[in-house]
Amino acid sequence: MSVTIHPVILCGGGGTRLWPRSRPERPKPFLPLLGERTLFQQTLDRVSDPARFAAPMVVAGEAHVPLIAEQGRSGGAGLRIVAEPLGRNTAPAIALAAHLLPEDALMLVCPSDHFIADTRAFAAAIDGAAALAGEGWLVSLGIAPDRAETGYGYLKRGAPLAAGGFAVERFVEKPDAATAEAFLADGGYSWNGGIFLFSAARLLAELHTHRPDMAEQVARSARAGTDRDGIFRPDEAAFAAIAGESIDYAVMEQTARAAMVPVSMGWSDIGNWNALAQARGGQSAARVDMIDANNVHVESDGPRVSVVGLDDIVVVVDGDEVLVTSAAGAASVGKLPGANGR
Amino acid sequence: MSVTIHPVILCGGGGTRLWPRSRPERPKPFLPLLGERTLFQQTLDRVSDPARFAAPMVVAGEAHVPLIAEQGRSGGAGLRIVAEPLGRNTAPAIALAAHLLPEDALMLVCPSDHFIADTRAFAAAIDGAAALAGEGWLVSLGIAPDRAETGYGYLKRGAPLAAGGFAVERFVEKPDAATAEAFLADGGYSWNGGIFLFSAARLLAELHTHRPDMAEQVARSARAGTDRDGIFRPDEAAFAAIAGESIDYAVMEQTARAAMVPVSMGWSDIGNWNALAQARGGQSAARVDMIDANNVHVESDGPRVSVVGLDDIVVVVDGDEVLVTSAAGAASVGKLPGANGR
Repeated sequence: MSVTIHPVILCGGGGTRLWPRSRPERPKPFLPLLGERTLFQQTLDRVSDPARFAAPMVVAGEAHVPLIAEQGRSGGAGLRIVAEPLGRNTAPAIALAAHLLPEDALMLVCPSDHFIADTRAFAAAIDGAAALAGEGWLVSLGIAPDRAETGYGYLKRGAPLAAGGFAVERFVEKPDAATAEAFLADGGYSWNGGIFLFSAARLLAELHTHRPDMAEQVARSARAGTDRDGIFRPDEAAFAAIAGESIDYAVMEQTARAAMVPVSMGWSDIGNWNALAQARGGQSAARVDMIDANNVHVESDGPRVSVVGLDDIVVVVDGDEVLVTSAAGAASVGKLPGANGR
Repeated sequence: MSVTIHPVILCGGGGTRLWPRSRPERPKPFLPLLGERTLFQQTLDRVSDPARFAAPMVVAGEAHVPLIAEQGRSGGAGLRIVAEPLGRNTAPAIALAAHLLPEDALMLVCPSDHFIADTRAFAAAIDGAAALAGEGWLVSLGIAPDRAETGYGYLKRGAPLAAGGFAVERFVEKPDAATAEAFLADGGYSWNGGIFLFSAARLLAELHTHRPDMAEQVARSARAGTDRDGIFRPDEAAFAAIAGESIDYAVMEQTARAAMVPVSMGWSDIGNWNALAQARGGQSAARVDMIDANNVHVESDGPRVSVVGLDDIVVVVDGDEVLVTSAAGAASVGKLPGANGR
């Protein structure tokens, strides 16, 4: 494939489940959680080959524009920033980006806060997805599941396609544990990791078909927007009037042209502290002393952590906050008062 | 009783099991762990009635003399300090104090790092013990057990004595769990809390009988000591040559004149973080937010602590150290590298 792909990187979401490291003023994408570069920077790095990718477009809340400018610079890539006046979920964000790209552009939509260990597998999957998108498919990367995860949506693989990949037979909401076990045993289900590839024109056409009101509102906010110093700002009133919805609900689950490319690339959404601990392979990111303790994961911005008589816990020390959670409890961290600014 | 009692307050011991709050430079006696005054200050307060008590003598390591002078002043009592060049356990410390007191003085030996909720019960027990000591008994306060504790030594109550209290039938080392249960069911056993009352002359005579070498060495270190600005320092070489031993082993378990006065006074040795949590009645000394968590005890010098999915734990935040322990693991905290200066 020699077609140029336009990366669209989404920086929404608060990342409250990684509190207290993730805070409103510096949320999850902008933290170096795995490696020296932040998840956002690693996302940029994966689409940095100028022979394959155009300069990325980053869609984010106004509050994070300075962080994006700062971290984008150190990545070396020229960025185009789309600053949302408020969050309206992924469908409006992606549609807005589509309006700002050439009609025939192939858009690669990537979350900015996921981790991908095997970037070659990622690149190969993008090649496959681009071939399908060039034929008018709306493509999801289908991530090979390695456990019966109940926290993700799934894609059921359908018929194989001539250009590679598969049609999507159906999208499945987060399953219960028994269903997740059945999916894993079946082998025909992949995780929906929120990475999509489609042409801008096709995305807008599908949105117009399935969510005509949203399509119209997004178009209006784009037409009345301003573009200054590399930052595009949609019209605030028009954008605020949009009913927020995910791209999955608004388009991917509605279209007859959904395709998927299976990929196994060491992916993690780092959805909570336990997921981060697993992605780190059990290596704590700080000194930890233990007596009668196993499977203890520690993050600390300074203080030493000592643990006695406890298994399967995560301890996070970050400035004026200390979090102690069981591995199983990690999924509930986002409900803590601290994670909600109280 | 109108006899004057000479309090001898022992400030030895590192308190490593309350690390990281207790540190070598400010160990357990000198911390306000329960209430606004430190355990040492509360110990002074209990013997502050000038109608009953002489000015206290405090035996401590040289490093803690400044702390004692500082905290003693705020208590208002004039102190006499005995500075040990190094720790040699309780028998030499008490014998040294005995040498520095009048021969007929009644000595009340108290640890400086225990908590006593009911100071009236304490005072009444001291009255009873003083009557016995006046008759030549070496008296222990026998603390009424409220649980089958395996961490303490016990006293078995013997025959009642005419002057009140009881002879000690025997001293028992820390028992195993089944034995501790039997002691509790029996009702004739008390905890040995390390609070003693005897005359200085009797103590020295018993030491001379049962530990003649130690008695001689202590006498030598006392004779060759210096007394300056209210601080007595034994001769360092002579004191260092003493083989350290506890007063229990060296004297109380040997003498034929051991007596005990039973007392129930809300006593705790605050021997570890779990014991402190219990003495506090489960009230954390800091803000703690919880989800799916019960019986969580938190101490913090600033940071908020949030706990998810864990029961029966203690979290201590102190400057550059964070401790997370199960309630059961609290007894092992003293073995941590941090608690041992590593």
